[in-house]
Amino acid sequence: MLNFTVGPVMSGEAVREIGSHQVPYFRTPEFSEVMFHNEQLILQFAKAPAGSRSVFITGSGTASMESVVMHVLSPRDKAIVINGGSFGARFVQLCSLHQIPHHEVKLNFCEPLTESHLEPLANQGFTALLVNMGETSTGVLYDMPMISRFCKQHGILLIVDAISTFLADPFDMASLGADVMITGSQKALACPPGVSIIVLSPRAIERVNANPDVCLYLSLKQALLNGERGQTPWTPAVGTLLQINARLNEIVAQGGVDAEVQRVRELARDFRSKIAGMPFEMASPAPQNGVTSLRTSGTSAYDIFTILKDEYHIWVCPNGGELRDHIFRVGHIGALTPSDNTTLVEAMKNMITRGLIK
Amino acid sequence: MLNFTVGPVMSGEAVREIGSHQVPYFRTPEFSEVMFHNEQLILQFAKAPAGSRSVFITGSGTASMESVVMHVLSPRDKAIVINGGSFGARFVQLCSLHQIPHHEVKLNFCEPLTESHLEPLANQGFTALLVNMGETSTGVLYDMPMISRFCKQHGILLIVDAISTFLADPFDMASLGADVMITGSQKALACPPGVSIIVLSPRAIERVNANPDVCLYLSLKQALLNGERGQTPWTPAVGTLLQINARLNEIVAQGGVDAEVQRVRELARDFRSKIAGMPFEMASPAPQNGVTSLRTSGTSAYDIFTILKDEYHIWVCPNGGELRDHIFRVGHIGALTPSDNTTLVEAMKNMITRGLIK
Repeated sequence: MLNFTVGPVMSGEAVREIGSHQVPYFRTPEFSEVMFHNEQLILQFAKAPAGSRSVFITGSGTASMESVVMHVLSPRDKAIVINGGSFGARFVQLCSLHQIPHHEVKLNFCEPLTESHLEPLANQGFTALLVNMGETSTGVLYDMPMISRFCKQHGILLIVDAISTFLADPFDMASLGADVMITGSQKALACPPGVSIIVLSPRAIERVNANPDVCLYLSLKQALLNGERGQTPWTPAVGTLLQINARLNEIVAQGGVDAEVQRVRELARDFRSKIAGMPFEMASPAPQNGVTSLRTSGTSAYDIFTILKDEYHIWVCPNGGELRDHIFRVGHIGALTPSDNTTLVEAMKNMITRGLIK
Repeated sequence: MLNFTVGPVMSGEAVREIGSHQVPYFRTPEFSEVMFHNEQLILQFAKAPAGSRSVFITGSGTASMESVVMHVLSPRDKAIVINGGSFGARFVQLCSLHQIPHHEVKLNFCEPLTESHLEPLANQGFTALLVNMGETSTGVLYDMPMISRFCKQHGILLIVDAISTFLADPFDMASLGADVMITGSQKALACPPGVSIIVLSPRAIERVNANPDVCLYLSLKQALLNGERGQTPWTPAVGTLLQINARLNEIVAQGGVDAEVQRVRELARDFRSKIAGMPFEMASPAPQNGVTSLRTSGTSAYDIFTILKDEYHIWVCPNGGELRDHIFRVGHIGALTPSDNTTLVEAMKNMITRGLIK
């Protein structure tokens, strides 16, 4: 199976090899060392400001999104939520559930966010802005420098879901003035799913310490406190945390975060050039490096997903809901190469020849 | 490393081999089949009453304990919580956080729970009882038939944390009249940590559907709904769920749940007979099959843990807090054999010879 979904993605050999080991007992100084190292490399790769911390939650990206909404925000906040797809909608749902007063900036499918969406919200008492840097459901990358300027100008806390963009698109937490970054193990980190990661700026840490815990399991106070000794409050996905360590070290050895972003960017460019002339339209005018959303014309997108899976043993990523028959996505994160792109493109060309893609 | 902790424990070869595979994309009919099978085997092994469901949460046992407190109970309940150690204390903490009125039955270290603790609580409007069937921090197995009689007699909902007893001690959810059972991937299931499992009786399902969601990520409504199509609401620890499937099938092939409980019981008996005459005292008068708690006399229990780890490459399980220097635990769950017991006992005898255990 060749996997072009946006998660879980393909893992490299070092990560898979660790998957075959016995999982060690973890309340040990040895495991704490691994966790200190994980925290330090995540902060370095996120270009987090001095005094930031990162914590590791055993759960999906949604677990970390909810933990942040529950513990960095409070009902005394007033938040702007950018909603350009299903992950933006999830932030809206979380703010509603946890009674965070919020205003939703609802975008049409693949519509870019511009200053004209934000300017009317200036000077209205907003305290936080939540955005999915890449709205993975559509493949749109938002204009982060523009969002950052707006937040800085108005003293608004910037919370960034970078789940599918971390290590794939340039991100500089300090220069953006972002206070929270969220990512997951199964995206560009290319490890098995099961762990999500939150980076908190000093300002976000202050808020966590001032707010009451809403959920014990997702408590950021507990995560920060236990992290001081290189531990987690509850039994974590120990094996996945060891795999994350191997992968972070691999990125260091291969030139660091900027080199990794460049590698993903080149892989995306390679794929996009290879599909020129095929009956697909790029759905996103501002695509993330990590994923290409393709609109089909004469063929159900879901059928393309199914045939590629069943007859060619290649996974692309289907969309759900209304877009199911119109959009499929091709990921460029994980252990993929230009030669893998060629394999996928050849399969799709073969489907065209067979009349299965029109 | 030979691992006698109570989790993560040693995994068998089939489970570890799956750990080396690429993790597949999971929004597929193929993965749904695996999940239907997982649900069905968990229900069968728990001896759950007809109409029960099981759901799989990516998170630790605490995540599932909290999910149950949040969504099976509500502030209109009045709960009895058995607190005989750190996991009982966790249920108390969760009930406090989520404003579930509760009465704590606080037991001394390794004190058995008897009818005399429960009888004074009859006819006082209690609606639920929460108990850790095995209080893993002390190794005590509670008298479940006695607790069950009390709950049945007074129409009280019985919530059982069986995290460290499922597949290790006999458990019959239907005959106990239990409404909730909780377990985890890294205990007798002998898979990597990262997944916890909740079995809900029809009565518990009704409560979940009647109560509002307190947490989206830990929503049992969402878990039940998505489980109907063999899926989870959020990206789960897909690899661990495939490993759980392999392990459940292995238990079927080896004679089923009763044979597995018998295997663990024999392994515990073997260890306990081999340490006769050594300067340890069995701490628990009613030990779980899955763990033996040992009280040391002349030597720090934590030092024994450290020396076994560093010099003999064997992990036993240290205790925290006040018990750190007095108690260590030896697990009997996971891929262990009588010959592994001998290796551990020989190492401890060698430490006695060296004057390191007195």
